[in-house]
Amino acid sequence: MADPGRVGDRTAEIARAVRVFADDHLGGPEVCVGLSGGADSLALTAGAVRAGLSVTAVVVDHGLQPGSDEVARIAAAHADAFGASTTVVRVEVGTGGGPEGAARRARYAALDSVRAGRPVLLAHTLDDQAETVLLGLARGSGPRSIAGMVAWARPWGRPLLDLRRSTTLAACAELGVAPYVDPHNSDPRFTRSRLRTEVLPLLEDILQGGVASALARTATQLRADSDVLDDLAAQARASAVRGDRLAVDALAAAPPAIRRRVVRQWVIGNGATEPTERLILALDELAVTPGSRARVAIGGDDRHRSVVVRDGDHLAVVSDPRG
Amino acid sequence: MADPGRVGDRTAEIARAVRVFADDHLGGPEVCVGLSGGADSLALTAGAVRAGLSVTAVVVDHGLQPGSDEVARIAAAHADAFGASTTVVRVEVGTGGGPEGAARRARYAALDSVRAGRPVLLAHTLDDQAETVLLGLARGSGPRSIAGMVAWARPWGRPLLDLRRSTTLAACAELGVAPYVDPHNSDPRFTRSRLRTEVLPLLEDILQGGVASALARTATQLRADSDVLDDLAAQARASAVRGDRLAVDALAAAPPAIRRRVVRQWVIGNGATEPTERLILALDELAVTPGSRARVAIGGDDRHRSVVVRDGDHLAVVSDPRG
Repeated sequence: MADPGRVGDRTAEIARAVRVFADDHLGGPEVCVGLSGGADSLALTAGAVRAGLSVTAVVVDHGLQPGSDEVARIAAAHADAFGASTTVVRVEVGTGGGPEGAARRARYAALDSVRAGRPVLLAHTLDDQAETVLLGLARGSGPRSIAGMVAWARPWGRPLLDLRRSTTLAACAELGVAPYVDPHNSDPRFTRSRLRTEVLPLLEDILQGGVASALARTATQLRADSDVLDDLAAQARASAVRGDRLAVDALAAAPPAIRRRVVRQWVIGNGATEPTERLILALDELAVTPGSRARVAIGGDDRHRSVVVRDGDHLAVVSDPRG
Repeated sequence: MADPGRVGDRTAEIARAVRVFADDHLGGPEVCVGLSGGADSLALTAGAVRAGLSVTAVVVDHGLQPGSDEVARIAAAHADAFGASTTVVRVEVGTGGGPEGAARRARYAALDSVRAGRPVLLAHTLDDQAETVLLGLARGSGPRSIAGMVAWARPWGRPLLDLRRSTTLAACAELGVAPYVDPHNSDPRFTRSRLRTEVLPLLEDILQGGVASALARTATQLRADSDVLDDLAAQARASAVRGDRLAVDALAAAPPAIRRRVVRQWVIGNGATEPTERLILALDELAVTPGSRARVAIGGDDRHRSVVVRDGDHLAVVSDPRG
């Protein structure tokens, strides 16, 4: 291992990004860093220490692959050598929402359980952002999804969103550490890995480069757009929500983009989790169709289902027994 | 050729889409249709006639390939058999902005020159929309570009934006016509053709289908978003534009997404053609940096260049001699 006191150019670049992030968003030096042992999170851990933060590297062992405890142990040892405190958390990964989603939920829950009031820095790079945007677009999951990941959503911070994965790899080489390479990252059964290894290189070839940066730039613009529209929707919602009912006449003058956001926020407030765009459009149709007898299912449990109906000038949630 | 009086299912579907479009947007039955001789525009021509419109099919001969006059003649003959009037226009294609852009500009100019007050129906399908969205995204050319093509922007109408290319192909088979296949459509030198033949099929495979529809759906949502934001920007602009100067203090309270739209509209009004996002960000930086001495070039001609500078609390355009 190289002398941890020597700072290479790429490691210094990462430390600068963390320093700028901390100055902009953090109130003190105490942070957790989510550490997988991969290049991105190793470089972030080292950079955060070099940036003068008091770092606890949290390694989440998902227990999904043989030897995952050894991967966690090595990652923690690297973090220790960088000058960070370390914590290893073993989690049980559920099965809902696909393997990637289940692992992600378990990871975030584990990080949240050990952070003890501290912000958690995550090592997502510009390349991760590009994949997220492309995935959201290809799935048609709406403007907020294409807007990608945000740099700071308390307690989660992403200081490396403007840096490339190549920078974190170069930093690990400077630091003399061999990052863990997750076989899932190139496993063709996983959607995101196929975007990374097949679609993005093809797009870069066709457009002669610059695609990852373009996707990230688009995400930034769309996030700024969504911020304005979400604010307008929150104002409109304040006058349209009456208890657990939605007064559609109060939405009549709102343009469709605002009306649909109000409907989305309202239905989430009434128990729908991650409503699809298709569901929002069905509810919006109900909101603009006086006298509609349509019944739009929004969820429920084993014994009842929740259904949105039109009741005069309101949308209302009713509960139907199943069976 | 099949009996033109017999309407197959797919041709009827296209006629219905044209009928709905005409009822929503058109004031009378007289229309032009842009006809290349390909499946999309042949199907649109036939569908528009079946929808009861009085159709003039305008065939633009770009003269870019040997035999293009014969392709135009055959297309016009098909349109005539469908019951449309026909016009063939020969154009000269320039060289600016790449071969696809130059041909497109020449085509739109030719259609505009012969339409004589009539709307012009264009045969873009959901698949074209998906390609447009993906291209705008991969180029990072901003939210309006990802929002894709609009169904009606006087005098241009696109009745087939919700239909698949497979439907127009099936309609041509029903009609007994062999559509012209433009070799450019599969020429790997062309960016759009590589998106069509390589990227979109790969994405469809990875995401198990639905990608073209997802892209088109996203475009629709983003267009609704952009409409709201552009309206807000137009209101903000009314108070910020003073003659040919832009009062930046009037923009101070506007969120970035609105401020940048105002800056974009202002600089287009001052002679910048198709400003890049990079240019808009540079101008926005100037607008929010009191005392900045930056000079941002926005265009010009052979002898002068136009430069935006900060003059106290205003942005102003100055003209610099070149050389």
